[in-house]
Order: sequence, then structure tokens, then C-alpha cells
Amino acid sequence: MKIGILGTGMVGRAHAQKLVELGHDVMIGTGDVDKTLNKISENDFNSWYKNIDGLKIGAFTEAAVHGELIINAIKGEMALAVLSLLYDGLNNKIIIDISNPLEFDEKRSVKLFVCNTDSLGEQIQKALPDSLVVKTLNTVNANLQVNPSLLSDGNHDVFVSGNNEKAKQLVAKFLKEFYGWKNIIDLGDITTARGTEALMIMWLNLSTKFGTAMFNYKILK
Amino acid sequence: MKIGILGTGMVGRAHAQKLVELGHDVMIGTGDVDKTLNKISENDFNSWYKNIDGLKIGAFTEAAVHGELIINAIKGEMALAVLSLLYDGLNNKIIIDISNPLEFDEKRSVKLFVCNTDSLGEQIQKALPDSLVVKTLNTVNANLQVNPSLLSDGNHDVFVSGNNEKAKQLVAKFLKEFYGWKNIIDLGDITTARGTEALMIMWLNLSTKFGTAMFNYKILK
Repeated sequence: MKIGILGTGMVGRAHAQKLVELGHDVMIGTGDVDKTLNKISENDFNSWYKNIDGLKIGAFTEAAVHGELIINAIKGEMALAVLSLLYDGLNNKIIIDISNPLEFDEKRSVKLFVCNTDSLGEQIQKALPDSLVVKTLNTVNANLQVNPSLLSDGNHDVFVSGNNEKAKQLVAKFLKEFYGWKNIIDLGDITTARGTEALMIMWLNLSTKFGTAMFNYKILK
Repeated sequence: MKIGILGTGMVGRAHAQKLVELGHDVMIGTGDVDKTLNKISENDFNSWYKNIDGLKIGAFTEAAVHGELIINAIKGEMALAVLSLLYDGLNNKIIIDISNPLEFDEKRSVKLFVCNTDSLGEQIQKALPDSLVVKTLNTVNANLQVNPSLLSDGNHDVFVSGNNEKAKQLVAKFLKEFYGWKNIIDLGDITTARGTEALMIMWLNLSTKFGTAMFNYKILK
């Protein structure tokens, strides 16, 4: 399957690596390909990228056009601005939106830049009315997103929110067959992304408390 | 133990009934005792109250003075205003704060009236600097709050947030010994109430989805 992944951070890389391993035709998109490939840092992109045989890299627009399915792993603060520019390439496509509306201030404290009566998922759907936005996976760490079996043999929950039933069903199938998710809870329309995005406040508290990002919720009923 | 419960709704009643059954000296507080006792409605207070032998009722001020320990079960929209007036009666006492900052509009849609960069728990602690506010139980239904074993043999989680370590330890002991909670996660200071209060958005979505309020989270790590 031709998949376009937008964003070259930890989330974009985790999905790209997993999907290439599964044999898909994946292009990872970035704002400036040269800059991304030449940046030297502790976790620089190129050191990782050169070991992923077959992964393509392109500008955001190229990755959007490449994908039959799109994964939005752009940092929350930039996601809406970038996606709005990709309108044509994203038309009639499913966008798996993993972004969270996190805003870090100078003291490294964190808040949501949209919440409660709106969500980033809704804003993206509104900016791209001809795309099918499905919010999911934003409640777990990047490694767990693509390898849920790393925790409790995969017996924990992930959520989907979106306005299109068929798109949500296809995304649920994708999560099951490609990543191995067992428990996928359909919360409802895209407004329910308010709940999963706001969960990030709790997630950050728990992550500090536990000293690890490898945890997740299971709902008992 | 002398316990003051503020609020005569479902949450206040659940705690009052349980604590009276356990043999405590409980007074339930309300804004207007006569009005509360004489109101006729589907779930009126008096039909319930007359069956709870030994439960005292008083004005908010009386219940605050009565309790060595205070449980705030006042509706979120009124909680801060009422508690601020009870300052003297609440001095040097632990307040178990169960309220959530829910605001219902005319269409019965719901939002939080404080979230993200502040919380109702913090506002109450700020208004009552000489009290020890511990936010807890606000993530589960009233029946589960006092009877966690009704779900999955009690193997699910509840959280505490507060600035005073000793107060949190006493509240955790209270939750274990009086109600039977097994898993109590100390999230940190009162600012972590932002996380559990914001969880309410998700809780409401899940409650709609499942058609029941008898569910809870378990964190796997």
C-alpha cells in the first residue's frame, strides 16, 4: 500500500519503519528534505534513515500525493498550518491524525493550545473538508503505537474518533492487521477527539510519575 | 469518625450512606435544610434520607464544623462559591474534593468551566489556603466511588492529587479501609487535578458509548 507519513520526529519514524518492514511503499514527508537529511543532532534523522531500506523521503506535498493513506505525525503546533497547505494532495484520502495540541513554554511546562470546546482533530477536519480525518493513537507513546504487544500482550485500549464510519472501520482494520491492536474503541464523531487529546494532560502526569512512557489505559466495564 | 459531607446529590448521598453503614458520625450539609427535606421530585432527598438511620443533616456551615474530615460533593458550578464561605469551619481540615468543573448549557451539551492551565481543585485550594485539599474519586461514578468492588473485583485505579503528603496518605488509607480501593495512584501536587478533571471529557464520551456509568480505567505498565 502507498502510504504518506507527514513528520520526521519519533512518531513519524516509528510508523515509517514498521510499515516499510511490512512491505509497504512508504514516503516520509518533511518541510525541507535537505535540511532534514543534513541536520546533525543526538537523534538525527539521517543516522536513522540510512538504515531503513526502501523508505522514500520527500517534501510534505510529495508525501501527501504519494500516499493512498496519510499519517499525520507533524508536531501539534505546526500540524494545522502544514496540512492546510496540502489540501489538493489530501483530497478524498483518509488521514490518520496522531497529533496532540501540545504547547511547550520556555520553562518546559506544557499545556494544550486547544481543548474542551474544540480539538486539533476537529480543526484539521474543518480545514480539510474533503479528507476523512480519523483521530487515533494519540494516547500512547510512538513505540506502543506500532507495537502494542510490547505492553501486557497487547491487552489495552486505543480509540478512534471521526465523522466517517467507513473510514473509521478501515483505520481499525489497519491498526489490527498492520500493528496488532486488539481493542479499538470507536468513541464517535471527530468531536470526541476532545477527550483523547485532553487525556494528554493525564498522560504527562503519569509519565512523570512512572518514569516511563510505556504504559496505557485499559477500560474495565 | 466525625465526617461532614457537603452536597446532597447522588455523590453526597452515596458517601453518606456508606459511611453511616460503617458506623461513622456523619452530617450531610446543604444550602437550605427545609427546602432540601421538603422538595418533592423523582429522586427526592427525603425519601432517601428517612431510610438512613443516624444520618444528620445541617446547613453547609454546620456540616463543615461537624466534620473532622470533609467531603466536597457540591455540584462543580457552585463548589468554589460555597466552600469559600465556609472558610472558618474548614480550617486545618482535609477536604476530599470530588467535584468536577462541569457546565451544562441549555442543549445539555457539556464543557469544563476551568481546565488545561488551572483546575477546580487548585481554585478550591487557593480559596482555602489553611485547608488540605485532596482531589480524588472524581474520575468514577458515585456508586463505584464507595463500592469499587462492584467492578472487576476492585482491580481498577483511582488517583489522588494534593499539596500535602500526609493528607494524601490519610485519604489513601480512608479510601482503602472505608471503601475498599486497592489501587490508589498519587499523581503529585494539586495541579495534577488538571489531568483527572479533564478526563471527564473522555468519561462522558465513554459513558455515552457504553450506555453505562459502571466502568473505570486501569493503567497497565
